[in-house]
Amino acid sequence: MKAIVFDNGLKLDNNYPKPIPQEGEALIRVTLAGICNTDYEITKGYMGYVGVLGHEFVGVVEEVNSEDKSLIGKRVVAEISYGCDNPDCEWCAQKNYRHCPDRHTIGIWRKDGCMAEYITVPTNILFEVPSNVTNEQAVFVEPLAAACEITEQLHIEPMAKVVVLGDGKLGLTTALTLNAQNLDVLLVGKHRNKLDIAEAQGVKTQLLSNFTPEKKYDVVVEATGSASGFETSMSLTKPRGVLVLKSTVASGKELNLAPIVIDEITVLGSRCGQFPPALRLLANNRIDFTPFITKIYPIDEALEAFEANKAKESLKILIKI
Amino acid sequence: MKAIVFDNGLKLDNNYPKPIPQEGEALIRVTLAGICNTDYEITKGYMGYVGVLGHEFVGVVEEVNSEDKSLIGKRVVAEISYGCDNPDCEWCAQKNYRHCPDRHTIGIWRKDGCMAEYITVPTNILFEVPSNVTNEQAVFVEPLAAACEITEQLHIEPMAKVVVLGDGKLGLTTALTLNAQNLDVLLVGKHRNKLDIAEAQGVKTQLLSNFTPEKKYDVVVEATGSASGFETSMSLTKPRGVLVLKSTVASGKELNLAPIVIDEITVLGSRCGQFPPALRLLANNRIDFTPFITKIYPIDEALEAFEANKAKESLKILIKI
Repeated sequence: MKAIVFDNGLKLDNNYPKPIPQEGEALIRVTLAGICNTDYEITKGYMGYVGVLGHEFVGVVEEVNSEDKSLIGKRVVAEISYGCDNPDCEWCAQKNYRHCPDRHTIGIWRKDGCMAEYITVPTNILFEVPSNVTNEQAVFVEPLAAACEITEQLHIEPMAKVVVLGDGKLGLTTALTLNAQNLDVLLVGKHRNKLDIAEAQGVKTQLLSNFTPEKKYDVVVEATGSASGFETSMSLTKPRGVLVLKSTVASGKELNLAPIVIDEITVLGSRCGQFPPALRLLANNRIDFTPFITKIYPIDEALEAFEANKAKESLKILIKI
Repeated sequence: MKAIVFDNGLKLDNNYPKPIPQEGEALIRVTLAGICNTDYEITKGYMGYVGVLGHEFVGVVEEVNSEDKSLIGKRVVAEISYGCDNPDCEWCAQKNYRHCPDRHTIGIWRKDGCMAEYITVPTNILFEVPSNVTNEQAVFVEPLAAACEITEQLHIEPMAKVVVLGDGKLGLTTALTLNAQNLDVLLVGKHRNKLDIAEAQGVKTQLLSNFTPEKKYDVVVEATGSASGFETSMSLTKPRGVLVLKSTVASGKELNLAPIVIDEITVLGSRCGQFPPALRLLANNRIDFTPFITKIYPIDEALEAFEANKAKESLKILIKI
């Protein structure tokens, strides 16, 4: 089968072995996949991963290796990680597979990804896509779930002042998601054209150059991915407020953590999320991802697609398989 | 009056003007004061503070500038900060004066400290010392309140595994305080003689050299004050656990914050606390600070006292006034 593989370089392999579903797994014909910045990081060596790339996708189940065949023919999405499923694993018991110490993560850690004609994944991380949700929306469910994770971890009160820093995919998705939960959100970024995507869907926005930093926000979401973004976030968080750290890139800089203690700030690391709330937002048309799509490439043009993903003006690059 | 003053160097001033209580303030004759590491930091330039040093003390009220004279003759301690007390200040309304943007902090910020024969402070931050609590115990109420602050901010469940890193005054006080609240605490440090102070009062302890770091603690308290301590703390915090950051010293090092996101750790900055729970612990003899006292110096030997405070083997140096 065709597969986009990272192995000592990024390549399109036309003869990658088609996976065989193991006990409890489904075989899925992939329809559409998205390029995430993590995929790009992997091509630079992140996690030391070798194999088929990709973890954002929608596809159709062709085969199931278990008694229950009800998923066959269904259009599905899959959570990014699956766990050991041992009865005594607290993380698997909570379906928080991403924290299972023995987890596999699609296209990132110990499991081939979705940028291929076929993928196999355990059926317990599959979710059927509601019929009114298009493939072009469903392919965003994984980053959308990551944005939903914030309110899974943190109770944001309705009167709280929330600011999201960064107008990349992560910041836009986060601001739209919090706005879709009726929270009072301001999105601050450097690009008017990106901010407009959120503003068109009801989010208040402000250009960083017009923004007066004040230590008055109950919740600050750091979605810039830069160390300076982390410091700006600290300066916006009011005493006893919460700084939600969404990006893993903010690192390797000298940081003064004293403001965290002096203002008794909570820094909350936040990562991937469970799919049901994200699918609910999509089914209810609460967020429209159409303006995120910069271009859809056929799998045969995978290398061009990854090249296009690097461009600063790109938002989401999709791959049709 | 005699006062220990920092002004272009540390000095004992025998003719410092005796303060006059303003409206709402009490005049207190100071009996005993403690040297805190913050005092030492101030002598190195912290906060740019100039004035009488010290914020840990016990004393007796001699005069009150308000109608209610009931405090006169009472043995009292005072919280470290007081606020604007404007009716619309959310921090003052909660008695969390330390976060009031217009606060004064005794011996640190805009208010003379307690290392003098007399101090004036607003009566609303004064607390009477229970009669069964000696001056030598009461003088520890401020750092004890700072340790109590952790459970003011964070619900620690009874089954949670808690580890405190660092066996200085801060770590010892924190471990003893959490232990006094019936929590399952392990104190890890480098000095057997210091660990023994906590162990003698029921805290489990372990030398760092015998300690096997495992990512299994629900709550990790960073009380080493070093950047490497912060990194060790991250490596001990289980996914979705809480790292309580107690010391403001951990700064200026290159830090990789990615583990916070990957493991969805909460970093909780924690600072000073309110006095009532600390006074309750003292009144109920739940913690004995006697073994903390390295030496008590008369105020005339203030410079020697500050010198002794620098010694690595010192715990608490007190000044009798």
